[in-house]
Amino acid sequence: MMISLTLDDLKRLPIAAFAVDAIRDAYVAIVDGRANIPPVGYLRLEAQNADCHIKYGYIAGDDVFVVKIASGFYNNPRRGLPSSNGMMIAISSDTGQVVATLYDEGWLTDLRTGFGGAIATLALCRRDSRSIAIVGSGTQARQQIRALSAIAQHPLTFRNWGRDGARAKTFASEMTAEGFSVKAEPDLATLCATADAIITTTPSAAPIVMAEWVRPGTHITALGADAPGKQELHLDLLSRAAVIAVDHRAQCADHGEIATAVAAGLLDPSACPELGAILNGSQPGRTADTQITIADLTGVATQDIAIVRAALQAVKQAST
Amino acid sequence: MMISLTLDDLKRLPIAAFAVDAIRDAYVAIVDGRANIPPVGYLRLEAQNADCHIKYGYIAGDDVFVVKIASGFYNNPRRGLPSSNGMMIAISSDTGQVVATLYDEGWLTDLRTGFGGAIATLALCRRDSRSIAIVGSGTQARQQIRALSAIAQHPLTFRNWGRDGARAKTFASEMTAEGFSVKAEPDLATLCATADAIITTTPSAAPIVMAEWVRPGTHITALGADAPGKQELHLDLLSRAAVIAVDHRAQCADHGEIATAVAAGLLDPSACPELGAILNGSQPGRTADTQITIADLTGVATQDIAIVRAALQAVKQAST
Repeated sequence: MMISLTLDDLKRLPIAAFAVDAIRDAYVAIVDGRANIPPVGYLRLEAQNADCHIKYGYIAGDDVFVVKIASGFYNNPRRGLPSSNGMMIAISSDTGQVVATLYDEGWLTDLRTGFGGAIATLALCRRDSRSIAIVGSGTQARQQIRALSAIAQHPLTFRNWGRDGARAKTFASEMTAEGFSVKAEPDLATLCATADAIITTTPSAAPIVMAEWVRPGTHITALGADAPGKQELHLDLLSRAAVIAVDHRAQCADHGEIATAVAAGLLDPSACPELGAILNGSQPGRTADTQITIADLTGVATQDIAIVRAALQAVKQAST
Repeated sequence: MMISLTLDDLKRLPIAAFAVDAIRDAYVAIVDGRANIPPVGYLRLEAQNADCHIKYGYIAGDDVFVVKIASGFYNNPRRGLPSSNGMMIAISSDTGQVVATLYDEGWLTDLRTGFGGAIATLALCRRDSRSIAIVGSGTQARQQIRALSAIAQHPLTFRNWGRDGARAKTFASEMTAEGFSVKAEPDLATLCATADAIITTTPSAAPIVMAEWVRPGTHITALGADAPGKQELHLDLLSRAAVIAVDHRAQCADHGEIATAVAAGLLDPSACPELGAILNGSQPGRTADTQITIADLTGVATQDIAIVRAALQAVKQAST
């Protein structure tokens, strides 16, 4: 029986309960040879100011392979429609039959990016980290707070900064209403200088987090840079870091946070461990409480596969 | 309201009524600049002896763009399952919202290839063609008889040949039971020498139709060669042809029927008109009843878009 779920159906499922193990495995699959991830497909609709990405792949051993269709229609907001949309399709890796069609409208991607960031943050931050700085006021700023709070072993306090101060305040009050401890901090330098971990989620094309603001022992998860030309951290901050982990080395070197440093010859990507290697213990991560650590995350199709796996596990649990 | 249709649903719709215009337009879109067809995506599942092709594209002016997922699981027949499977997804070119999910299991591809072949055959054969030779006994051999009969303006008689003589006889009796005039011909040379048009549908990797068998005035539609290494027509037959039309020039030169001749330097692909240019009158096709003409068809994603357009038109008609 084929599974067909709408966004509302998906939101009612206990996906988060399965997502952490799945997304952690998605990182490891990149480094242990299980991931088969062909190049991303791309269709541009010039006249509509729109595009569509098709990401697909298989993690060896999984029951399904996954095709994700993600569209961006950038004139939609003017009409009161979200610009992002999409769906995921799970196909049996045994027979080729369609197992599930998930009309998630991009929500599963938000979810997997949330858990992906939280797993990276917890893998590299100091164990006694309690104060988390959130840079940005968008969807991922929210998702990072939700995912980190869900998987951290202790309560966290968040402070947030946004370019639009009013929006940052609204963000803090909305997240507080959701039950989290979140306060807006109007000064980005103060925010960064007093945090145990900093999570950057902006589409900035120029460095906004300066090296001198960040104290020893801080971890930074940089999520914003996912396309050529984007950068959130100053190059000097990368120089100060003891560990710069990447989700996918080639992808990060090409268009992640480290891309500018790599292009300038200031950073050798082979010196950047992939996060999966840290998670499975084959490479060290943070080795001292005084180190600055960085995680550069660009998003990988194994995470799409993993979140679909988690969704199907949740369907199975809900139906038994 | 999103449309979701199974194969059974699709088979009940009057798709054929809309398919001819749509598939004809699919050929023309290739030559008039409306087609936006990125490279085909490919995922290989080595351990399963399986693969998956993802074809997608947009014809400017259409309400939807289309993503087709087509899998081949080559161990399936051993278990009584078809090796081919797949689905098509129509997405609004205006908003990015999913309009329709068609779980056609590959049937729409068979249908579009059928009409695609029939349109090419009728565009290039002599007007008085009545006797059609079918080479091969597979799915497309059947589809060509159905589609040609549906759109020809007069009754046709078919004779068929297959490598497996018993299977060819079964083919003829089954197609006769469907209401067509079909007789098996055990000798391929005789078949080819007495036909007005020849349609080749085999996966042959070596020429099986010889130049000396074919009389002046014959048209040949070559459907079998759709991947490197496949060839059905002898090179001398290509030399004798006055017109060699191709569905997509670059694709045919790379892995269609003409690929061997092109690779050997015997044929300049720029001398091969694209079928869409013949259909829209911008280039001549057959100009004399004594000419031998050839159509080399490899299949193009515009046809997938077109058959989805036809299916959606049929849905609309069925619901009014």
